[in-house]
Amino acid sequence: MSDCRLFELVADDGTSISPFVWRIKYALGAKKLNYETCGVGFTDIPQIDEGRFTTVPVLQVGERYVGDSWAIADYVDSVSSDGARLFSSPAERTMARFFDEWLGSSVRPLLFRICVKDIHDRLQPRDQEYFRTSREQRLGQTLEAAAAAREKLVPVLRATLEPLRSPLDKQPFLGGATPNYADFIGLGTFIWAGSVATLGLLAEDDPLLEWVSRGLNVLEGTGRTVRLSGLDLRHG
Amino acid sequence: MSDCRLFELVADDGTSISPFVWRIKYALGAKKLNYETCGVGFTDIPQIDEGRFTTVPVLQVGERYVGDSWAIADYVDSVSSDGARLFSSPAERTMARFFDEWLGSSVRPLLFRICVKDIHDRLQPRDQEYFRTSREQRLGQTLEAAAAAREKLVPVLRATLEPLRSPLDKQPFLGGATPNYADFIGLGTFIWAGSVATLGLLAEDDPLLEWVSRGLNVLEGTGRTVRLSGLDLRHG
Repeated sequence: MSDCRLFELVADDGTSISPFVWRIKYALGAKKLNYETCGVGFTDIPQIDEGRFTTVPVLQVGERYVGDSWAIADYVDSVSSDGARLFSSPAERTMARFFDEWLGSSVRPLLFRICVKDIHDRLQPRDQEYFRTSREQRLGQTLEAAAAAREKLVPVLRATLEPLRSPLDKQPFLGGATPNYADFIGLGTFIWAGSVATLGLLAEDDPLLEWVSRGLNVLEGTGRTVRLSGLDLRHG
Repeated sequence: MSDCRLFELVADDGTSISPFVWRIKYALGAKKLNYETCGVGFTDIPQIDEGRFTTVPVLQVGERYVGDSWAIADYVDSVSSDGARLFSSPAERTMARFFDEWLGSSVRPLLFRICVKDIHDRLQPRDQEYFRTSREQRLGQTLEAAAAAREKLVPVLRATLEPLRSPLDKQPFLGGATPNYADFIGLGTFIWAGSVATLGLLAEDDPLLEWVSRGLNVLEGTGRTVRLSGLDLRHG
């Protein structure tokens, strides 16, 4: 596989800020695929491949464009024989999907509400207007009102994450000694939120910080390229 | 492995009514282990092996008693080479643990509140007194008050189960073509609650009913021995 390009959502300073892009960066690393990145803003997404996509990541391989992070993961797993399989069995893929559904229904909505104003403030100016309008409609409140209520959501977030702590207390990753795609999904979520948040998302003694720290160090430090303002990793 | 006996919690009519026992029945079936059962009530548990246990399942193998469903699962997986491995990899075990933590923090507490009076009514008389006292203390309300509020919890339960539906829409079990220990955990939970509930837990078009139906038919119909009053499986 060659000529591989990953379209990623970027902040005004170029920071990659999508949980779905981050999991794909990890997946491409695990599959030992070289790629170049093309940073886009929200308002640039309709320019990719004549408007076929409304979200990133989009992976371009030669003339082919693949959107949707699950479709991309399945695609790179099927076409590249380098690196380990992302999904060693149907069971592993299904449980990763369940884990993603859980994160998507319980955890990411909380992180979104906590970080929504922070995300806005990091976008390039022409994305800010689009983001404010669309997200205020989704939230049913202004970004400023959401930001004012965020501190009350932090303890809710920390309690919601409880099912994840004891499975990780005996081994370093959900995948065992090495991370699997479920880890990539979780790490992508924390790198996304951690890179934009302007308050501490996790308590400084939360064992999940150690999991994130370990995740930043795998695959030649894929996740190390970003500063995580919302996660206190000094103790992790 | 021989002389294997499973201590199980039973209702007054002998029905097995513990989600943790049911998963072990499935696990023993998957490991092709023959066993006899010994039905006990809540108030009989202190009689097992000189009071070492406060919960069932307890598995007796010769002179050895093993309690705690996770310890039993690991034990039978390590000592019996018959049948498939319960956990083919550390990742599969970790994700099953996460799934169990999620069920235990989000789903079983709701099922418990919905079914608590039904459970009480099914117990043998000397268990009923113990159950009422201990559970009313835990709930902070009478069993009757909990029962009066149960219908409001049914839509909450159905919404809480959402992360489980789409992973199961493409394949029959969490384990793929055949059930794995995560399925056993989930099936045990639904057989437990479904066997005691006196109202419909899931909507009759809920795809999770098909998953439960499939689960009842595996391992020579392990789960078929019980009538599921709380699950409408005609359409499943």
